[in-house]
Amino acid sequence: MKYMKKSFDGLEAYYSKNLTEGIILNANEASYNPPKKIIDEYLDKVKDINFNRYPDMMNSSLCYSIAKRYNVKPNEVTCGVGSDELLEVTFRAVLEVGDRVVSFSPSFSMYKVFAELAGAEFIGVNFNSDLSFNIGKMIETINKYKPKLICICSPNNPTGQVLTLNEVERIIYSTDALVLLDLAYVDFAENDLTTLATKYDNLIVYRTFSKAYALSSIRCGYAIARHDNINLINAVKAPFSLSVQSQMLAEIAIKNYRLYKPLIEEVKSERTRLYNELKNLGLNVYPSEANFLFVVMDDKINDELLRNKIYIRKFANTKYRITIGSVSENDKLIEVIKSCVQQ
Amino acid sequence: MKYMKKSFDGLEAYYSKNLTEGIILNANEASYNPPKKIIDEYLDKVKDINFNRYPDMMNSSLCYSIAKRYNVKPNEVTCGVGSDELLEVTFRAVLEVGDRVVSFSPSFSMYKVFAELAGAEFIGVNFNSDLSFNIGKMIETINKYKPKLICICSPNNPTGQVLTLNEVERIIYSTDALVLLDLAYVDFAENDLTTLATKYDNLIVYRTFSKAYALSSIRCGYAIARHDNINLINAVKAPFSLSVQSQMLAEIAIKNYRLYKPLIEEVKSERTRLYNELKNLGLNVYPSEANFLFVVMDDKINDELLRNKIYIRKFANTKYRITIGSVSENDKLIEVIKSCVQQ
Repeated sequence: MKYMKKSFDGLEAYYSKNLTEGIILNANEASYNPPKKIIDEYLDKVKDINFNRYPDMMNSSLCYSIAKRYNVKPNEVTCGVGSDELLEVTFRAVLEVGDRVVSFSPSFSMYKVFAELAGAEFIGVNFNSDLSFNIGKMIETINKYKPKLICICSPNNPTGQVLTLNEVERIIYSTDALVLLDLAYVDFAENDLTTLATKYDNLIVYRTFSKAYALSSIRCGYAIARHDNINLINAVKAPFSLSVQSQMLAEIAIKNYRLYKPLIEEVKSERTRLYNELKNLGLNVYPSEANFLFVVMDDKINDELLRNKIYIRKFANTKYRITIGSVSENDKLIEVIKSCVQQ
Repeated sequence: MKYMKKSFDGLEAYYSKNLTEGIILNANEASYNPPKKIIDEYLDKVKDINFNRYPDMMNSSLCYSIAKRYNVKPNEVTCGVGSDELLEVTFRAVLEVGDRVVSFSPSFSMYKVFAELAGAEFIGVNFNSDLSFNIGKMIETINKYKPKLICICSPNNPTGQVLTLNEVERIIYSTDALVLLDLAYVDFAENDLTTLATKYDNLIVYRTFSKAYALSSIRCGYAIARHDNINLINAVKAPFSLSVQSQMLAEIAIKNYRLYKPLIEEVKSERTRLYNELKNLGLNVYPSEANFLFVVMDDKINDELLRNKIYIRKFANTKYRITIGSVSENDKLIEVIKSCVQQ
């Protein structure tokens, strides 16, 4: 790329094929669509939009509804094109070239991408062998490398395990750096740490409508933090990033969050079933509080899944992340894996 | 902002009130909604979306339709959250700290913002006193400052005047730098230079659905260029930035672009009427090929417009940009201005 600046040398455009058929268990999307009441309210409202008018650049009405849901002030909330946009903007706002970012590893792959785009060095802290978090090692790494940003994802993508309140606070207290707490999957977990968001001046919590809210299609995420940190994001973020339609649907969804409870409960119960089935088949599967399971298994099993148009996410040889599908999708998945193991 | 990096010192979050009533002539939005056939097709399709699935990150189907419209290859097109996102990403991909950006001035205000966010210096080339482009001065400035990026907006926002093909090519030939040709308003002009996009290896053309397509609400823009330059944007751009809903509506709109013709013709005819009316009232109004007029007038006129809830855009004392509204909106505008001038 002739015009790419030198410091971005080696950066490549990422092209991927969009999956539209088969059993899609590779992107941690919800296995369900939003409740009918939510879609109906959206379809009823969307037809009356002034399509020719720009969105409210402050996403005021949506921020207000999110603030109400979490009992914070509207100016302690900001919204963006997925939590991705808000994370990327935070990296850009905070990091100078040569600064450091620390995260557990493996975790959400964009932390490393965003760090590199900002010219920063990414340092990963390995998990314990049972994929539990090594908090001691994390704090040691923070003390050694003095990062400007620390990213923690809980439940962690792709491993599924969660940090306790005490563990998160130990990390927050150990550093003056800004801690980004990514709770994308927290609706599937037992405890929700969102209320920490405004308790510490070095913390920002990131959430999304792409997972439990079953709204990946609208690309909407939000951040909650003290106003000074929300300001930091808003000062760098492009204005007008969220469409009128996405703001509208996200707001209807969060106002009706209680309707998602039975859908989330089914994911949790399917998660338990799938975990037990895979365990019984002798696969190395790890406890998870997210809508996916991390599994170590023979690559031939994945080959057979692919032949059956069942798509899971491969991280490395023998290392896979399987999104919890619907009951029938999981049935089919188990059937194919069984056929491989019992051969 | 405690955690803001030093090089972003002074950057402030931009908060603006969203206008929802009155006569809104401050944002160059279309005065009309999209044709009914387009909205109907959208409402019919949108209800069958899998809301829980991520968009196609490559916007393949939309890129294909845009490519077909302009007779280029699909890999010579990329889409983003307004042309804003694509411009911002281009700035970030090309500019190192200390590099320079040259543009006519005044022009689209984000060129300067994006330059500064990328740590670059912004240099503006003034217009001639009649607000025509000073090409000689532009080329002189390019030779003197050796910018990495040159931004030209035609019709220019906020002045409304257009560059000829010959003038654009003189600029392209004068430099090895990348030339960004922003054609946001070109559907309201006599000549469309979009087909230049793939002719030069140092050119990218930016277009939007926010103006003539009357789809500001969906936040969708696109860029056309040779594949290497499209690659440059795609390598830095966040994946999954456009919602399924926005991609869908944009595609329906561009496939049906002929339906917009009478709507655009009405804007042009209203532009002529408004120009003549304001001229006759003794105001200093400039020729425009966009959906707005640049006017120099007494600030008291704006005070009176505000009292009547008519919102136009103020650039400096006595300097205003007025979006062409609907016939009745323009009637009301003329009436209020008349009442001021004739006092």
